[in-house]
Amino acid sequence: MPRITLGRYMWERIHQVGVDTIFGVPGDFNLQFLDSIFHTKGLKWVGNQNELNAAYAADGYARIKGVPGCLVTTHGVGELSALNGIAGAQSEQVKLIHVVGQTTRPMQSNHLMIHHSIGQKPDHRQYDRASEGLRFAAARLWDKNTAPQEIDRVIRECFIQSGPVYIFLPLDLSAEEVDVDLLKSPIDLSPSIDIASQDKAVQAIQDALSSAQKPAILIDALAHRFNAAQESRTLVSKLKAPFFSTNMSKGLVDEVEETYVGLWNGEIGTPGVKEAAHSADLMLILGYLAADTNSSGFSRKVDPSRTIFIHPFEVVVKGRTYPNTHIKSLLAALNAQLPTSPMHTLQKLSLPPPRIPDDLSATHITQSWLWPRMTAFLRPGDVLIGETGTTVFGLCDNAFPRDIRFQTQVYYGSIGWATPATLGAEIARRELEDAGGSKGRTILITGDGSMAMTIQELGTMIKAGLSPLVFVINNEGYTVERMIWGAQQAYNDIVPTDYSHLLPLFRHPAPETSFHVARTKEELEAVLKKESVLDPQHLTLVEVVVDKLDTAWRLGGQLAVRGEAAREYLRKEGFVDAMGGWGLEGSGDVGVKWS
Amino acid sequence: MPRITLGRYMWERIHQVGVDTIFGVPGDFNLQFLDSIFHTKGLKWVGNQNELNAAYAADGYARIKGVPGCLVTTHGVGELSALNGIAGAQSEQVKLIHVVGQTTRPMQSNHLMIHHSIGQKPDHRQYDRASEGLRFAAARLWDKNTAPQEIDRVIRECFIQSGPVYIFLPLDLSAEEVDVDLLKSPIDLSPSIDIASQDKAVQAIQDALSSAQKPAILIDALAHRFNAAQESRTLVSKLKAPFFSTNMSKGLVDEVEETYVGLWNGEIGTPGVKEAAHSADLMLILGYLAADTNSSGFSRKVDPSRTIFIHPFEVVVKGRTYPNTHIKSLLAALNAQLPTSPMHTLQKLSLPPPRIPDDLSATHITQSWLWPRMTAFLRPGDVLIGETGTTVFGLCDNAFPRDIRFQTQVYYGSIGWATPATLGAEIARRELEDAGGSKGRTILITGDGSMAMTIQELGTMIKAGLSPLVFVINNEGYTVERMIWGAQQAYNDIVPTDYSHLLPLFRHPAPETSFHVARTKEELEAVLKKESVLDPQHLTLVEVVVDKLDTAWRLGGQLAVRGEAAREYLRKEGFVDAMGGWGLEGSGDVGVKWS
Repeated sequence: MPRITLGRYMWERIHQVGVDTIFGVPGDFNLQFLDSIFHTKGLKWVGNQNELNAAYAADGYARIKGVPGCLVTTHGVGELSALNGIAGAQSEQVKLIHVVGQTTRPMQSNHLMIHHSIGQKPDHRQYDRASEGLRFAAARLWDKNTAPQEIDRVIRECFIQSGPVYIFLPLDLSAEEVDVDLLKSPIDLSPSIDIASQDKAVQAIQDALSSAQKPAILIDALAHRFNAAQESRTLVSKLKAPFFSTNMSKGLVDEVEETYVGLWNGEIGTPGVKEAAHSADLMLILGYLAADTNSSGFSRKVDPSRTIFIHPFEVVVKGRTYPNTHIKSLLAALNAQLPTSPMHTLQKLSLPPPRIPDDLSATHITQSWLWPRMTAFLRPGDVLIGETGTTVFGLCDNAFPRDIRFQTQVYYGSIGWATPATLGAEIARRELEDAGGSKGRTILITGDGSMAMTIQELGTMIKAGLSPLVFVINNEGYTVERMIWGAQQAYNDIVPTDYSHLLPLFRHPAPETSFHVARTKEELEAVLKKESVLDPQHLTLVEVVVDKLDTAWRLGGQLAVRGEAAREYLRKEGFVDAMGGWGLEGSGDVGVKWS
Repeated sequence: MPRITLGRYMWERIHQVGVDTIFGVPGDFNLQFLDSIFHTKGLKWVGNQNELNAAYAADGYARIKGVPGCLVTTHGVGELSALNGIAGAQSEQVKLIHVVGQTTRPMQSNHLMIHHSIGQKPDHRQYDRASEGLRFAAARLWDKNTAPQEIDRVIRECFIQSGPVYIFLPLDLSAEEVDVDLLKSPIDLSPSIDIASQDKAVQAIQDALSSAQKPAILIDALAHRFNAAQESRTLVSKLKAPFFSTNMSKGLVDEVEETYVGLWNGEIGTPGVKEAAHSADLMLILGYLAADTNSSGFSRKVDPSRTIFIHPFEVVVKGRTYPNTHIKSLLAALNAQLPTSPMHTLQKLSLPPPRIPDDLSATHITQSWLWPRMTAFLRPGDVLIGETGTTVFGLCDNAFPRDIRFQTQVYYGSIGWATPATLGAEIARRELEDAGGSKGRTILITGDGSMAMTIQELGTMIKAGLSPLVFVINNEGYTVERMIWGAQQAYNDIVPTDYSHLLPLFRHPAPETSFHVARTKEELEAVLKKESVLDPQHLTLVEVVVDKLDTAWRLGGQLAVRGEAAREYLRKEGFVDAMGGWGLEGSGDVGVKWS
């Protein structure tokens, strides 16, 4: 009976479920089974500069590719370095497989004081516990007879629950051999669905739609995570009802559709949008993720008596729950039941004219001018990665062109995520394009403070010959923090950086023509028209200089909301003084005055 | 009664115990109480580029300053990013205080879906659990009435146990007020000691010394961690017995002393050293840390029947344990009992001549030439930070000049640690110098792969106007991993880097004269003679180019030992096949052959 090593078995399984690139950092407890990556036909390795960046890269890969991102780290020093990236994937429900190369089983059993351990008689497995609660499943491999099914189990859980899983692989076990025929039966990735419950839910939704005059739809991030984007688009198309996006779901359904109203975050939004949402007599919310940063500080007013929530695993229709459903299957079943001609007449909503910024005539680059200009730069097929910070708040108002794959991490909100996520996203985008998918560019918009956190991953992109387009908004520091507190405080300054040296540092093949600086609107216009920027052949970096205290009006508004409207709203909802002590004023002195 | 905020109380306490600089990264759950740092007279803030680097910087600070390093991070995204640095401090018993700014208590109690959280009704405290087992104590502050004593408690534990502690501080609580008079009584940092046990142990040691002909001493890292370096030096001086160091304790007792024999790691060492150690009829081991990387793969032969272990909290004399002692107090008591004239005649050990490298005539820079040359460059008062990798293995054979403060992290072994640790170490060194301590330089020797991991912290050093001297050994990748496995494999390559752009990237004030490259012995000699390198006025970077497969003979030896001698030794010690599957050979193909 032909046999392969367990390490090889694991890679073959991971590749079988659609993963084509493995991220990570080598270490002496994973080196040997890294080799098997090179033996697995179709699987590629991309090494990262550190393990947190590897986790972020795998995260970005998963968001675009639609299958898990996978990273490999080593015992202790590697796995713990990646942990914040794992937590972010748990928070945002991004599929990750974290393979940890562990010390050998004899080392573990004998509690040897091996490097990367703690104490005189170390428990090598204590690091396993650090990620409890931050992952959906873990395979603690120990026995070659059960290891293959354990690997299969967590891969399945990764898909079903949509989030991170771990495979802890002792080094010596990775070289033991298993039956190659185990690979023949594919892992069952289908969720378990209570069809009766699904049918009742679909019926209830149809009944609600029949009795509604003005239904509307809110698309949110979990529709993406559970691979229900296409079904969401079909629903929007068949219902022909007005629809809204959130910060985290922008572009999931094309915003060029005539039914798109705008980004409905809550109290703070494009004039007319929240009013349009409130005027609906039935709101279908797909894949809801009601974080503060995805709802203008919890200020989105949702009336459960007029709302249908289609969550990943249950449906709630006007307060009644239908459990054990699955969003993808449910939407497909609902779509199949809907009539070909829409039930409702679309009322074209005419929104008030947009706000006129008061700095329109400025020649320097203002936030109010920048975000519409960047949105206009986008082309169908582009992937856009927006870092947490002024970027996401700024993009909110501007409708994307068709087929924009936008990703941001504003719920977990770990700045620095976006740069390595761009590495993963661009690799995924290319893999999809090679398999017949959209052409397009991968564009990153990040801030200077954020980019500094994980800056070395630009080197990985250059080494790999990738060609993302990177915009770094240079406002000399942590602008969102300045807006919250300590506008002039030293802790909100960052290290002054001359980006003209960044590409040559990593031996970029054409640094002279791949780096641009824009300090005025005119300069940025000129940059955005260059051929090498419109269609980058190499990693291209554009530094956009803006004022350090300028932010999108929306951010200022949201922070004000934290102080007033949010607390009022939450008080009404029963969160007694929930935001207490946050939306505060103070001079920075001892003895803070609380608003 | 005058009152101060709890945040201010905390900083005043931390400063009271000797901490003068706080590291960290601002975030919206710590911003307000960061301000209090600036109100605490004598306390300074140094912001880091990311949180892992902040933890490493605090670690380096603590190692040189002798009091805890302190870092501040924010809820979730900050604290988890730092975790690997905390684990390293736990492993190596470095004192750290990790202050985590948490969400407000109402946010926590209401399980609000605040950014940086996980799930629909998040448990904000789940991140607390990630560091369980990786810290010695944690203060989960909640009530201003008990918070001050909780802060005091963990600060005490930090000193007593020598390792990391946490202070979890909800943002709203940080602004509540407490009685300023609580600061008047200092925190009691003295360990509890069983004086009767100490007396018995001292007597037993004296008895053992009286009946020994040829005593010797091994100094190890925990003597440094528990502030017993001076007492160790006094013991060496009073006993006039031959003494040895380990990888992790080099320089703790001056190696220019006539009684210094050499670095006794185990089977692999300078010719004659292990023989000299074996010839002792009584070995006193101070602060033992018996990790594989501190003992040539566990191959140091220690005979318990002829050994006295002076551990941090107990003494073992020829197999008999005396508990509840403390290394610093015990050594002081022992020293006080020792006669002024040494009991034993020092036998001058004549070691065989050192190994002659077989590449002595090479003109390019060889590992065999480099480490003696670097050691000769050191001056009394210097701080030397050695990254895990070829550096530490190379330095082993060469005796340091007087008063060299050497630090390395080879037990935990997280590459990347050394660069931010240098930031912390240099800040501490300057603080000590300003208070009357040694003048000296802070010198970092690191590898290219290691430096890439945390490279942005060089920017912090430049911004702060510090002047460490940084040597980066460029051997095009992860050389230690190459030696273990996959010498030519792509995963052991790193991103090609042109270091001439590194200083200008971070707006170094004098990049032209602060960067040097040496590819030959002659070039490095010339660099090491430059005034700006001998006495750096700015951060100075020297790139040392070596062959990618060249390593110190000691490293090659240790890796061979893993395969043979280590397993034999461990088998005898009862660790049945403990190293099984590690010291292996293989071609890199599937079907690894195990040696």
